[in-house]
Amino acid sequence: MKVAIIGTGRIGRVHIENISTAVREMEIMMVADPYLTAESEAFVKQFDIPVLTKDVESIFTNREIEAVLICSSTDTHADYVIKAAAAGKHIFCEKPVDHDVNRVRAALDAVEKAGVKMQIGFNRRFDHNHRGVYEAVRSGAIGTPHIIKITSRDPQPPTIDYVKRSGGLFYDMMIHDFDMIRFLAGSEVTEVYAKGAVLVDPAIGAEGDVDTALVTLTFENGTVGVIDNSRQAVYGYDQRVEVFGSEGAVQNENDIPNTVVISRADSVTSGTAYKVMWDRYTQAFIAEMKAFANAIANDTVPEVTGLDGLYPVLMAAAATKSVKEGRVVTISEVE
Amino acid sequence: MKVAIIGTGRIGRVHIENISTAVREMEIMMVADPYLTAESEAFVKQFDIPVLTKDVESIFTNREIEAVLICSSTDTHADYVIKAAAAGKHIFCEKPVDHDVNRVRAALDAVEKAGVKMQIGFNRRFDHNHRGVYEAVRSGAIGTPHIIKITSRDPQPPTIDYVKRSGGLFYDMMIHDFDMIRFLAGSEVTEVYAKGAVLVDPAIGAEGDVDTALVTLTFENGTVGVIDNSRQAVYGYDQRVEVFGSEGAVQNENDIPNTVVISRADSVTSGTAYKVMWDRYTQAFIAEMKAFANAIANDTVPEVTGLDGLYPVLMAAAATKSVKEGRVVTISEVE
Amino acid sequence: MKVAIIGTGRIGRVHIENISTAVREMEIMMVADPYLTAESEAFVKQFDIPVLTKDVESIFTNREIEAVLICSSTDTHADYVIKAAAAGKHIFCEKPVDHDVNRVRAALDAVEKAGVKMQIGFNRRFDHNHRGVYEAVRSGAIGTPHIIKITSRDPQPPTIDYVKRSGGLFYDMMIHDFDMIRFLAGSEVTEVYAKGAVLVDPAIGAEGDVDTALVTLTFENGTVGVIDNSRQAVYGYDQRVEVFGSEGAVQNENDIPNTVVISRADSVTSGTAYKVMWDRYTQAFIAEMKAFANAIANDTVPEVTGLDGLYPVLMAAAATKSVKEGRVVTISEVE
Amino acid sequence: MKVAIIGTGRIGRVHIENISTAVREMEIMMVADPYLTAESEAFVKQFDIPVLTKDVESIFTNREIEAVLICSSTDTHADYVIKAAAAGKHIFCEKPVDHDVNRVRAALDAVEKAGVKMQIGFNRRFDHNHRGVYEAVRSGAIGTPHIIKITSRDPQPPTIDYVKRSGGLFYDMMIHDFDMIRFLAGSEVTEVYAKGAVLVDPAIGAEGDVDTALVTLTFENGTVGVIDNSRQAVYGYDQRVEVFGSEGAVQNENDIPNTVVISRADSVTSGTAYKVMWDRYTQAFIAEMKAFANAIANDTVPEVTGLDGLYPVLMAAAATKSVKEGRVVTISEVE
Repeated sequence: MKVAIIGTGRIGRVHIENISTAVREMEIMMVADPYLTAESEAFVKQFDIPVLTKDVESIFTNREIEAVLICSSTDTHADYVIKAAAAGKHIFCEKPVDHDVNRVRAALDAVEKAGVKMQIGFNRRFDHNHRGVYEAVRSGAIGTPHIIKITSRDPQPPTIDYVKRSGGLFYDMMIHDFDMIRFLAGSEVTEVYAKGAVLVDPAIGAEGDVDTALVTLTFENGTVGVIDNSRQAVYGYDQRVEVFGSEGAVQNENDIPNTVVISRADSVTSGTAYKVMWDRYTQAFIAEMKAFANAIANDTVPEVTGLDGLYPVLMAAAATKSVKEGRVVTISEVE
Repeated sequence: MKVAIIGTGRIGRVHIENISTAVREMEIMMVADPYLTAESEAFVKQFDIPVLTKDVESIFTNREIEAVLICSSTDTHADYVIKAAAAGKHIFCEKPVDHDVNRVRAALDAVEKAGVKMQIGFNRRFDHNHRGVYEAVRSGAIGTPHIIKITSRDPQPPTIDYVKRSGGLFYDMMIHDFDMIRFLAGSEVTEVYAKGAVLVDPAIGAEGDVDTALVTLTFENGTVGVIDNSRQAVYGYDQRVEVFGSEGAVQNENDIPNTVVISRADSVTSGTAYKVMWDRYTQAFIAEMKAFANAIANDTVPEVTGLDGLYPVLMAAAATKSVKEGRVVTISEVE
Repeated sequence: MKVAIIGTGRIGRVHIENISTAVREMEIMMVADPYLTAESEAFVKQFDIPVLTKDVESIFTNREIEAVLICSSTDTHADYVIKAAAAGKHIFCEKPVDHDVNRVRAALDAVEKAGVKMQIGFNRRFDHNHRGVYEAVRSGAIGTPHIIKITSRDPQPPTIDYVKRSGGLFYDMMIHDFDMIRFLAGSEVTEVYAKGAVLVDPAIGAEGDVDTALVTLTFENGTVGVIDNSRQAVYGYDQRVEVFGSEGAVQNENDIPNTVVISRADSVTSGTAYKVMWDRYTQAFIAEMKAFANAIANDTVPEVTGLDGLYPVLMAAAATKSVKEGRVVTISEVE
Repeated sequence: MKVAIIGTGRIGRVHIENISTAVREMEIMMVADPYLTAESEAFVKQFDIPVLTKDVESIFTNREIEAVLICSSTDTHADYVIKAAAAGKHIFCEKPVDHDVNRVRAALDAVEKAGVKMQIGFNRRFDHNHRGVYEAVRSGAIGTPHIIKITSRDPQPPTIDYVKRSGGLFYDMMIHDFDMIRFLAGSEVTEVYAKGAVLVDPAIGAEGDVDTALVTLTFENGTVGVIDNSRQAVYGYDQRVEVFGSEGAVQNENDIPNTVVISRADSVTSGTAYKVMWDRYTQAFIAEMKAFANAIANDTVPEVTGLDGLYPVLMAAAATKSVKEGRVVTISEVE
């Protein structure tokens, strides 16, 4: 399967490296980035990729390319989705599709009309620990879910420059958790109450964003959920989920670099969680790409569909509104 | 130190047994219960207690008695507090003092005027696991608290009869967690958003109560918190706390009856949490009573004061109102 | 059930306190100690015990006494067992019965002839964690045991004075593990290879003893076992067992004072194991005494019989000989 | 760095795949196997390797090849080492170098004379969990090591055909642990006492081998150690180490496929350890190859030298003799 990648930033490079070394099902034919830097060029050169260009359009006209991976900045996602769909390419689009619900819908419509496949880059669904919780819930091991809790904290805040462009914590960071909680709940959210705070860095607050958030969610099926986010957990990636139900509970723990435990006279110590995302989610990034390749090869529905890209954006919109207005916001208000 | 106990229900018996066997600092002179049953009488008879009576008033007139433990039904707490204070007795009062904020205030006023000591029965503050988290927070190990999370689930719901009299989940069950979260935060709550659901037993809903709840709290100092309660965790008492802060995080795990782990071909299994409260909190009940005895003996402020009895009732009132009205409620609205 | 206790040293006091506060089935009528100190006297006075005397013989002639607890120094155990048996008293004897196999046998013969019950003070059999492993093995959960491993390390070495009188590490410390490994194996040891070392304190070596030991054991049923002992684990009591078998493995972990875990930028820390034996084995000491009371009350075989007192002494004798001669020693050589 | 690989069995294929996908420092120029099967050929064809041949000698005459990886059957290792050394190639040799101590010495001599580098395939030294223990010991965190314990059990026994050729459990399986215990001890073994048993499969015993073993080791520096091996741990790879010392202890736990824990009314369950070696040691195999490449590139001593290949063979010889003769065997007896 011949693919092209748009964007050579952090996430673009991850996919380039993973496909080149670990995803045998795919072959990268082109990499395009209008803002190509020397550094990016050097990175791409390490791999055996026929074409590296600033001309994104040349991807859509290349008849060999079966699928396009959209790894550029968020504001370009919707346009590229529409163009790729028009060109009959299958699409892997990084999250979020867009901050604007209408633009997301437009992109989804284009995909539907074109009859191509689209998978959204919610890689955590493919993480072994999160997947294990999902499977336990689906197997019925804990009965009917009553309460879902997601802890999701990053090791350090992004740059203020990134904060300005990110759309805010709900669109950029909690969007992963919005996806995860829907994935685990198997039901859609109806109401959102979001409490945000600036506790990590006042500069984030100065941009109108929050760096700490606690969001309560109500689902159609009666389940309640809560997500907490912090931009800075000094001990590393802290991303755990717990589903409590009528017959029990399931939870996961963070992955740690090793299992070593040292006992001394005053205390017992072990290592902290991972502090670099690519170390923490290495396998998940590979697994999501293999899943996308399989969906195309076997003509099946991708594991993370376009609608899975839409709902978290609605939740982010509701959470943003809830923080601003200090009240509960229904999803129907932002649809 | 000679003490008297009012009430021979579950909690009264726990204190009778603990003081008789493990709290050498105290000697029980009287036990009084207007609704004394044959079963209670048989229980008390096992211990070497001089007087067992239905006449509660005789406690207040007995000059030997230094302290009174109020373990009767909640609706009688405030009256007995006022009478005990008037009689110059130190007071240990089970939680909650009352469901009515004004009655709690009246009781606190009486205590203050009389200059006696009062400790509220929030035994979890004396639990080794919760205390350990508190000490870690106070030591500065995790920096400034940003997010506090309390998981608190009981093994099975109380009887419907009890539900009718309990004042509801927020007054009867989450009251412990309201106390704990204040204890950990070292700050007062300003806003409450409570989401309640009936997921365990419709009969509880029929009484106008909820059996599942998720409460988001805002503190004066900017910390945010969340408490979740369920009346039924089939795997036993699930009572964990986590405080996340600027320099790290601290959490505890449930106590388990033993540390045995069995590895077999298909899975690794270990035992569930405790399913009987007295097994789980044995040492905490003893420790709170020793603390009360010490506060009297050393003339120090009790570790859980009358105000510590008032604030959780305000939080319960706000949570109850929040569920009913589907909106955020400030503490000032219910004061 | 009226009992008498001989000896008011550490272990004697533990039993006096436990029976007085937590073992309702028994009533202490007499405490006797020929070497009674003022400190011991003050300790005993706290409890409601009718007779405290230096005259041990008066226990044997008191017709009210049903059972005698022998908590005096090891060299007196066998004589007191013989006297108590002759007086028709049931016997609880601290470990080891004696260092001399023949004297142990003589004591056991006396007990058998008198038809009284005898329980040996191997309290760890009653510890929740060790008992849990035993029950898993007996339930068949791990199939046929193949390898048994016991880790057993004390927080600090005893005084050199104690070392001189103790009979050596194998008789004084590993004797508990010799009992435990037989308990878990359900089979008798045939061969012993013991490796001893002086790594903690040369003064222990100067007394001809070792402070570190590694003992390999072969059982009649083919199981192999290994026990390691150290007189000094700076992180507290480290007493874990593991049984590996044809269908799986079972192991326990140390108890810890609380479950608190602190995550900071550089490491994750938790508390060490218990460092005071009475804290670690509180419940086990109470449980063994209740078991003894029940064996008498219900006329059943005690859970730790006289033979259970003999075999570990044989194992200690073989281990001592093995270290001295640097070779494998069979149990038949020391019988 | 251009390398050649001899052997296309299990371990050869692991190195072929790892170098091709994850070890950028190396480029495989040739793969040679005199017993090349169609299956192996198909495997190798997946990768971009210029030459696949049955002619091993052609490796030694190829001047482009800098290093040779010897992944053929054990009986051919020494000869190939000698030939590769003579041809001036650096050598990576799978363990054990040979079962015969004299042949190992001959190979080492050849390497020394040729002045090439040799690394032995003890991959577990590169495992994150074992490496973490090693680093803790070397950092002084636990003081002077007193007792080292290695648990090492495989998920299932090899085929009887393999058992016949393997040289026995001590040469084939425990050889890894002999290396690991030296690595951790930082001292050489002087005495070995090995207890072997046939508890898993009588057919293994019929070949004169054991399937269960417990080996006690004494080190020059006074440390004592114990290793237990079983050919069949139904719950997966169980490979843990523990080093106990004057200032504390360090241990690791098994890696598990995910951290998911399910709590239900009757028990708490989690997943078993890995059951496929390549899943368990994926990263260790890659890391050992990168270390070899680095040793050549930087002209440093390989992390696992030829002598590190010799000592475990001496220990295996002593253990084999100890089981046969039922006595302690010194290393000097087998040198």
